Amino acid sequence: MRVGVLTGGGDCPGLNAVIRAIVRKGTQSYGHEFIGYRDGWRGPLEGDHVPLGIPAVRGILPRGGTILGSSRTNPLKTADGVGRIRASLAEQEVGALVVIGGEDTLGVAARLSDEYGVPCVGVPKTIDNDLSATDYTFGFDTAVGIATEAIDRLHTTAESHMRVLVVEVMGRHAGWIALHSGLAGGANAILIPERRFDVDQVCAWVASRFRASYAPIVVIAEGAMPKDGDLVLKDGSLDSFGHVRLSGVGEWLAKEIESRTGKEARTTVLGHVQRGGTPSAFDRWLATRFGLHAIDAVHEGDFGKMVALRGTAIVRVPIAEATSRLKTVDPTLYEEAANFFG
Amino acid sequence: MRVGVLTGGGDCPGLNAVIRAIVRKGTQSYGHEFIGYRDGWRGPLEGDHVPLGIPAVRGILPRGGTILGSSRTNPLKTADGVGRIRASLAEQEVGALVVIGGEDTLGVAARLSDEYGVPCVGVPKTIDNDLSATDYTFGFDTAVGIATEAIDRLHTTAESHMRVLVVEVMGRHAGWIALHSGLAGGANAILIPERRFDVDQVCAWVASRFRASYAPIVVIAEGAMPKDGDLVLKDGSLDSFGHVRLSGVGEWLAKEIESRTGKEARTTVLGHVQRGGTPSAFDRWLATRFGLHAIDAVHEGDFGKMVALRGTAIVRVPIAEATSRLKTVDPTLYEEAANFFG
Amino acid sequence: MRVGVLTGGGDCPGLNAVIRAIVRKGTQSYGHEFIGYRDGWRGPLEGDHVPLGIPAVRGILPRGGTILGSSRTNPLKTADGVGRIRASLAEQEVGALVVIGGEDTLGVAARLSDEYGVPCVGVPKTIDNDLSATDYTFGFDTAVGIATEAIDRLHTTAESHMRVLVVEVMGRHAGWIALHSGLAGGANAILIPERRFDVDQVCAWVASRFRASYAPIVVIAEGAMPKDGDLVLKDGSLDSFGHVRLSGVGEWLAKEIESRTGKEARTTVLGHVQRGGTPSAFDRWLATRFGLHAIDAVHEGDFGKMVALRGTAIVRVPIAEATSRLKTVDPTLYEEAANFFG
Amino acid sequence: MRVGVLTGGGDCPGLNAVIRAIVRKGTQSYGHEFIGYRDGWRGPLEGDHVPLGIPAVRGILPRGGTILGSSRTNPLKTADGVGRIRASLAEQEVGALVVIGGEDTLGVAARLSDEYGVPCVGVPKTIDNDLSATDYTFGFDTAVGIATEAIDRLHTTAESHMRVLVVEVMGRHAGWIALHSGLAGGANAILIPERRFDVDQVCAWVASRFRASYAPIVVIAEGAMPKDGDLVLKDGSLDSFGHVRLSGVGEWLAKEIESRTGKEARTTVLGHVQRGGTPSAFDRWLATRFGLHAIDAVHEGDFGKMVALRGTAIVRVPIAEATSRLKTVDPTLYEEAANFFG
Repeated sequence: MRVGVLTGGGDCPGLNAVIRAIVRKGTQSYGHEFIGYRDGWRGPLEGDHVPLGIPAVRGILPRGGTILGSSRTNPLKTADGVGRIRASLAEQEVGALVVIGGEDTLGVAARLSDEYGVPCVGVPKTIDNDLSATDYTFGFDTAVGIATEAIDRLHTTAESHMRVLVVEVMGRHAGWIALHSGLAGGANAILIPERRFDVDQVCAWVASRFRASYAPIVVIAEGAMPKDGDLVLKDGSLDSFGHVRLSGVGEWLAKEIESRTGKEARTTVLGHVQRGGTPSAFDRWLATRFGLHAIDAVHEGDFGKMVALRGTAIVRVPIAEATSRLKTVDPTLYEEAANFFG
Repeated sequence: MRVGVLTGGGDCPGLNAVIRAIVRKGTQSYGHEFIGYRDGWRGPLEGDHVPLGIPAVRGILPRGGTILGSSRTNPLKTADGVGRIRASLAEQEVGALVVIGGEDTLGVAARLSDEYGVPCVGVPKTIDNDLSATDYTFGFDTAVGIATEAIDRLHTTAESHMRVLVVEVMGRHAGWIALHSGLAGGANAILIPERRFDVDQVCAWVASRFRASYAPIVVIAEGAMPKDGDLVLKDGSLDSFGHVRLSGVGEWLAKEIESRTGKEARTTVLGHVQRGGTPSAFDRWLATRFGLHAIDAVHEGDFGKMVALRGTAIVRVPIAEATSRLKTVDPTLYEEAANFFG
Repeated sequence: MRVGVLTGGGDCPGLNAVIRAIVRKGTQSYGHEFIGYRDGWRGPLEGDHVPLGIPAVRGILPRGGTILGSSRTNPLKTADGVGRIRASLAEQEVGALVVIGGEDTLGVAARLSDEYGVPCVGVPKTIDNDLSATDYTFGFDTAVGIATEAIDRLHTTAESHMRVLVVEVMGRHAGWIALHSGLAGGANAILIPERRFDVDQVCAWVASRFRASYAPIVVIAEGAMPKDGDLVLKDGSLDSFGHVRLSGVGEWLAKEIESRTGKEARTTVLGHVQRGGTPSAFDRWLATRFGLHAIDAVHEGDFGKMVALRGTAIVRVPIAEATSRLKTVDPTLYEEAANFFG
Repeated sequence: MRVGVLTGGGDCPGLNAVIRAIVRKGTQSYGHEFIGYRDGWRGPLEGDHVPLGIPAVRGILPRGGTILGSSRTNPLKTADGVGRIRASLAEQEVGALVVIGGEDTLGVAARLSDEYGVPCVGVPKTIDNDLSATDYTFGFDTAVGIATEAIDRLHTTAESHMRVLVVEVMGRHAGWIALHSGLAGGANAILIPERRFDVDQVCAWVASRFRASYAPIVVIAEGAMPKDGDLVLKDGSLDSFGHVRLSGVGEWLAKEIESRTGKEARTTVLGHVQRGGTPSAFDRWLATRFGLHAIDAVHEGDFGKMVALRGTAIVRVPIAEATSRLKTVDPTLYEEAANFFG
């Protein structure tokens, strides 16, 4: 059988490890042939593909990004998208698709598989860790590690000047990176999209930290919002922040802290460094195992399923179920982290 | 209540994170007081202790090792050990002990708790990841990360000279570090204590890798043994390896590969760097959560229990059960890694 | 003799290494006693000091920041600043000051020493590497290393989406960090304050890189300015950038590239992570040697001098000379880097 | 003109950066063509070469090792070696050779150039930093960084168990890596080949450190020798150490310390990890500049010369002069480091 592979959505450390595992095991154990579709769903939509054999995947395990390219193209929003994909698969004699992506990319795979009979197996991918049905997604551990190392560094600069440092990390809809890196980095406050924050409470934590003769670090997810959001919007400042990545809620908060506490505050927005570069050992391990189990599912004809991590086991779940709702931060986990606020 | 804390056995990144979490939550939420016993079980045995308040645990989260010191002292093998520990706890008015350690240290805690009524709560610790009843132990992720980074580096030197590089990692009885770092590092063979290896098979993998114009990396746990171990012992060489840490099975294997394949082979023994230094973000997260849940168990009087990771949840299990058998590498996981051999 | 030590200006990895070296050698070899003044010139101005013996400096070598705190207080702009400093030194029986700082802090030391006879020895400090008379300052190598690692990571995310990544690094008046990290990170354009950049030229480099099927990385110092700066100011956008750290010239450039080339562009502002955390081995080496040589100068009564690196030797130069002009990027070095643009 | 490039001797981070710089500037600025000879001098000896254009050198800047392979083949010890190299250059129409290597490889280039008129330009390469005429060689900073990070990690494990840790680093004939990493890592003793060490003195330093309630780290170069070497040799143990890399002088010293002080001591031999993997930013910078200046020398026909670093400038020196003597550790630098022993 010939199998197509594609990677969609934002790039994520570990994508290449998945591709390598699929091709290695599929070729060696099952005699599959592979082609790689380029730039996510754009590939099969336009028939843009490259051959994908073992030589092509040598050496890619430690490399970030994806050798297949990525895009946010959505065939369900494209004229005759499904028909063109079917025609493409037929033309390239592709009998199954392995779709590696996040909520949007997998959502397409679920519908293609369930409604249109296109044989898809899904591999979950998001550095945000907000996909249901899997304990973790690859890329997340790498992102948390990078953010934690940055927070470690910021502690010493904060201490030297006894100023507040606000660190804005990724996470528009879920605060997993903020929660994990904040806890691992010894943050004195962690603010996540799941619960609107009270600036006065943040200032109280800041003051408490200064009283202990230490300088506070506040970790905030880019999607976190203050309780008094309306007021903020009224003066126009958050409005412009809404679409300007680099002067977001972190910078807004730093100014609020300065004006309310009289202490200097600075902001660091970690940005894209969180999603690039070599994957952590954990993410290489998880991505590789996802790849191996995905090609097993293809071999067994178990389509419409997605691989997922449960404890230390890789299981299969319906793609549709996995993408049906966002996995947000569990309040009890947030309460654990809150033991260290202030 | 006054609570005693001790850390026993080999040091491990994350120990300080556990101590900090116990003291922070215990002080703030439950009003406990804390003392730290020094050097594992030697502390309560000899009444050697230090006060342990929130100021003492500030800033220790990212620091490797243990501020309390460690030892392998076993009170059950000491004259009147149990009596002396009881007397010590009584004298210091300590109503509960949190015991952070591996198989040996926790084994003592299990017996003290179950047989002698000393109120202990356990926290599992081993970089080897070989404790039953928990998905992972803290320190393991850090060790795997360090080993993986070393393997990444060794690939380029192997390629430049087209020689074999044998990397010996920790793991006397279980091959978890070898398995995870070998898979994450793209090793061409992984040899673990759980299955005796066949040198000819290793040489076949080495040859296969050279045929693909790449240089092979062989990752071997320090406790791995060849199938033809008897022959080895007969010529005396492995005998001396048995107690000389630095010329162990890795070096023996490199020489065998050289003599059987005619290719140059070199050995690197990673040694103690695997267990020192700042913990990874994952290990800080796990260690912190273990600490928080351990002090909850103390507060609830749930003694004789150990905290453990199951999926993303922290649960409690009887200490005795957790230390009753070694967690060795699951054969199916080893087979997954074997997809990349050769 | 009792010697005072202070650290002024922005924090910088290696400050603690200097302090440790001064105290170790001064105590052991010369029998000096030490006190540390807190927060730069504020310390002697207000008589705020701490004892500084060998125990106080143990373990601080690898730690970023400064155990003495820092500030930008300028005694020459303070009522009777010089008098108060003299009184303070007399009261604490301090016979010499070691002043660790950048242009401003050392500028004060030069005048205090040359005009008012306060016995000062200087140690140059700036992550920006823009102090004359020394080949390098400590902190710079650490900052370049952090920026380079970030650029390495950004390459993979740029490639995966075939978009432009603009990386804004520190450097208001000199482009050293941009130059070194850009060259080491394989940037396709490097923009520095020393020469106004031509956006069309940048777009040409970007286009050239895309033609080679790679995604471009543009490294820009925060103080770099476009040639057509007037036009920029006219629409008001750069005006607000002037004092808002996080939406600076990097973001402005990304938008210009997007609108002129039609390619997606993203910005990452590295910010304070460049100046925090553990110093690189090179910086620990340089800072330690600066400290050793500074205390030698104190011992010899060679005041008004600053230690400096020339090749592999540490020399002494008049503080006044060293701070008289900014060391900007040598045009021939910039031309070297330009071999890799596009 | 067609230019040949080769890399000889042990691999070293930065080799690829040199190659890339040569090819980029040579092609773009001078219109040169390039071929790469494989495996050092074996390449031209056997005519084994690959085409080397800009596409071949894209992306190699951050990669350790050498894309051209390396060997220790010496044409001057090969039958008609010079004649075969001349024939090879003639056949491939190569008008100049850029030779990147250490003492041996460059020694050949010097004689080929000076005695036989083969037009060579040299680029110095050794992680050991022991080549005369240049302040530093690339690869050295990377090696020092790796060793320093390892020492950082070992401190925490030493402290936790209050044991001595002996760290053996590279350096058979010169102690540069030991000196720099030992000083940067806060070692309590540094032992180098340039001066025979006194075990009792080492034990005194160890004891002094324990008295301060800290655990000692001893950094030793693999080529360091004890003063009482004869006694050592008499019992045969050092003899076998001479050619067994992994049970070298470090392990011997640890045993001596244990038996003389009664304290536990452990050894870590860093080995090949010091020479593999991605180069540091400094090494990429230096290697790139060496490459740019080497191709300038080729263009100017300035043969028999080697590029070298002096302060921040790249200069040219006769190859023969540069390789005529080993650059050993300056005693005054060693004395600087000795301020921190004990």
